[in-house]
Amino acid sequence: MAITRDDCEELDRRDPIGWVRERFTVPHGVVYLDGNSLGALPGRMAQVLAKEWGRGLVSSWDGAGWMDAPRRIGDKIARLIGVAPGEVLAADSTTITLTKLLLAALSARPDRSLLLTTATNFPSDLYAGEAAARLAGGSFRMVEPPALLDELSGAAGVAALYLTHVDYRTGEMFDMEGLTAAAHESGALAVWDLCHSAGAVALDCGGAGVDLALGCGYKYLNGGPGAPSFLYVRSELQGSLPNALPGWLGHEAPFGFEGGFRQAPGIGGYLTSSPPVLGLTGLEAGVDTFAGVEMADVRAKSVRLGQLFLEVVLEEAGGLVGVASPGDPARRGSQISLRHDRAKALVSELAAAGVVGDFRPPDVCRFGFAPLYLTYREVFDAARKVATAVVGASR
Amino acid sequence: MAITRDDCEELDRRDPIGWVRERFTVPHGVVYLDGNSLGALPGRMAQVLAKEWGRGLVSSWDGAGWMDAPRRIGDKIARLIGVAPGEVLAADSTTITLTKLLLAALSARPDRSLLLTTATNFPSDLYAGEAAARLAGGSFRMVEPPALLDELSGAAGVAALYLTHVDYRTGEMFDMEGLTAAAHESGALAVWDLCHSAGAVALDCGGAGVDLALGCGYKYLNGGPGAPSFLYVRSELQGSLPNALPGWLGHEAPFGFEGGFRQAPGIGGYLTSSPPVLGLTGLEAGVDTFAGVEMADVRAKSVRLGQLFLEVVLEEAGGLVGVASPGDPARRGSQISLRHDRAKALVSELAAAGVVGDFRPPDVCRFGFAPLYLTYREVFDAARKVATAVVGASR
Repeated sequence: MAITRDDCEELDRRDPIGWVRERFTVPHGVVYLDGNSLGALPGRMAQVLAKEWGRGLVSSWDGAGWMDAPRRIGDKIARLIGVAPGEVLAADSTTITLTKLLLAALSARPDRSLLLTTATNFPSDLYAGEAAARLAGGSFRMVEPPALLDELSGAAGVAALYLTHVDYRTGEMFDMEGLTAAAHESGALAVWDLCHSAGAVALDCGGAGVDLALGCGYKYLNGGPGAPSFLYVRSELQGSLPNALPGWLGHEAPFGFEGGFRQAPGIGGYLTSSPPVLGLTGLEAGVDTFAGVEMADVRAKSVRLGQLFLEVVLEEAGGLVGVASPGDPARRGSQISLRHDRAKALVSELAAAGVVGDFRPPDVCRFGFAPLYLTYREVFDAARKVATAVVGASR
Repeated sequence: MAITRDDCEELDRRDPIGWVRERFTVPHGVVYLDGNSLGALPGRMAQVLAKEWGRGLVSSWDGAGWMDAPRRIGDKIARLIGVAPGEVLAADSTTITLTKLLLAALSARPDRSLLLTTATNFPSDLYAGEAAARLAGGSFRMVEPPALLDELSGAAGVAALYLTHVDYRTGEMFDMEGLTAAAHESGALAVWDLCHSAGAVALDCGGAGVDLALGCGYKYLNGGPGAPSFLYVRSELQGSLPNALPGWLGHEAPFGFEGGFRQAPGIGGYLTSSPPVLGLTGLEAGVDTFAGVEMADVRAKSVRLGQLFLEVVLEEAGGLVGVASPGDPARRGSQISLRHDRAKALVSELAAAGVVGDFRPPDVCRFGFAPLYLTYREVFDAARKVATAVVGASR
C-alpha cells in the first residue's frame, strides 16, 4: 500500500492546524465525514445563553452584543471568504438570503430581467430563482454547466448569473474568477452561493470581483443545525442595491419606529427582522473555531485528506466504484463523491461501522472533509472501511 | 390603599397558575415587566443541544426530531391561538413570515391588488406590506384605525386586510372577530399579526374565521432572543395558497432533489430553508412552559395583574402620568402603557431600581405582564416603585 497508517500518524503530528480539533466536541468511535452537511459542535457554545438570556434578559440586546451580532459575525466570516469587513452579515436562512439577493439583483438591473443558473444547482436555489423571477416579473433559465458561457454571451438581458461554487453532489468547483468576469462582460451581476466552499476552500471573492454572495452557516463554518446563513454585498453596490425584503432592523433608525422604510447605509441595511440570537450564538462559536487559522492551511489539508481518501479507496476497491468528483483537486471542493449502484445501503452500513457520510440520489455516496477537526489517521481508517464495504457490496 | 401587599400574597397563594413560575430561570432582585419584548429563559433549555448536536450530529435531523420541529412546535402553538393541529408551523423570522403571507395573499386574489393596514401598525409590518405590494405589482395603504371600516367598504380591490391584534405601543386590542368579518364581507383575506397576543391573550383564531396569521416566538411564548416566528394558514386555504418564498423544505419530496418546485400538501408546504434548530429548541422550551396551562387562566391573571398595576400607580401618582392603554381590560392586551414627558429617563431609572420596562418614543413607558412567571406581590411592589419614580420625576 502506498500510504500507511503510520505515515498518517506522522502527518497528524506535523499537521499545522492539528491543534484546532480541541475546539470541538467530537464523539468517540466515529469518523465524521459529513461536515459538509452539519459541522461538529464547538466546545464553547456552553453556558453563554444561560448567562445572557437567563440573567441579562432584555438588556442583553445591547449588553451582550446581541443586536450587533449579525455584523460582528459577518466581519469574522469576511476574512474566510476574502472580502472586507462591513461587506458581510449573518441573519436569515440560506434560501431567504438567496431570494433577497436575487430580487435585489433584478431591481438593480431594471433593463434586464433574466436570472441564469445551472440545472445542477442545489434544488432550493432553483426554486428561489424561479420564485424571485416570477415575483419580479422577470424570467428564469437553467442550463447544463457546459452551456453557461454560450448562454451568457448569447442570451439578451441577463440580470444576474447565480451559481453554487462547489456542487453539492459531485464536489466539482466552478472557476469563480472566470465566470464572474464573463458575467460582468455580458452586463450581468455575479452571485455566488458558497454553501459548500466557505470554511473549506480558500476564497478570494473580493479579488474575483464577486458582486453578491451567500452561504450556509452550518456546514464547514460549524454554526450548528439550521444556523443562519451569511450575505455578502460588495461595498460599491451597497449604496444602490435595495433590501428587497425589508424590515425594521434594516432601517436607518430602527428605534425611531418610522412609518416608511429608509434603508440603513452599509451592510446593515440588508437586515430584516430581529437577529436570531440562539442561532447566531452557535454560528459565532462555529466561526470562532477558525480564529488564528489561515484558510490556505485549511485548504492544503483539505486537499491532502481528499487525495489520501481517494488513493486508499481506489487502491483497494478501484474497479468496483465510480468517482463522481473531479480527479484534479484544483477542480473540486472539500468532498469526494463515489458512485455505486448500492450507494444508499453503503452509506447506512458505513454509518453503523462508525463512518458518517451522506447519500444523494440516485447513486452517490458523499464524503466531506472538515480539516479543522479531522485527522489523517481517521481518514485513512475510514477510507479502508469504505473500501471494505464497497468490496462487500459488489460481490 | 385599596389593595395591600398582604392581599397580593394571598392572591399568589391562590393563583391557579402560580406553579408555572418554576419552569423559568427568573433572576433575583428584578421584577421583569418586559416579557412583551423578550420572555424569560425556560429552565429546561439546558443540555439538549450538547447531546443532540454534539453526539448525535447529522443523525439528529431525524433521530432527535429536528426535521419535524417546525410542525411539532406549530401544533403546540395551535392550541394557544385557537386553531387546529396541522395549521401552524414555526420557522422563519417574523417579518419574513409576514412578507411570505402577504405575497401569498396577493397571488391568491389576482383580481385584487391592495394591502390595507393601519398607520399604527408596527413599522416592520408597514415595511413588509409596502415591499410585498411593490414586488407583486400591487398597492399598499395605511390608515388611522377609526378609518378602517370605511376604507374597507369603500376601497375597491382589497386583497388583504392585515392588522396587529395588540398595538405594540398602547396595548390596545382590535376586535378580531368583527374586523375579520368585515374583511370577508369586502372580499378580502384577513391576516393577523399576533406578536403581542400569542401566549398572553386567549385567542380563538379558528372561531373568528382568520385566514392567515403569524406571531413572534420571543415575547410571551418565551422562545428566546430572536426566536423563530410562527405562521398559520387556515386549512381550507392550504390547497390553493402558494408558498411565495419557496425552498427545498417546502417541497413535496425534499430529498428527491427535483429541479422544479412542487409544494408539499398541508402546512409543511410553507417551509423554506432547513429548520433553524437552535432557535426552535429555544422556542419549543418556551412553548412547553404552557403545557397543562389553560389560556383562559392566563388571560384572567393577565387582566388582574394589569388592573392591580394600574390601580396602585394611579392611586399614588394619578394626576402626574397619562395612561396610553384603554381603561377597559377587554380592549387591551397584556400591557399597560403610561405617558410621561420624561418617559425615557423613567424607564432607565426603574431598570436601575429592579423594574424592567420599555421606552417607546416619544413618551411611552411600556410594562408587560407575563402571567406565567410574575406574581401579584412582585407587580404590586413594581407598581409602587413606578409611582414613586413618577412622583419624583414630576417635581
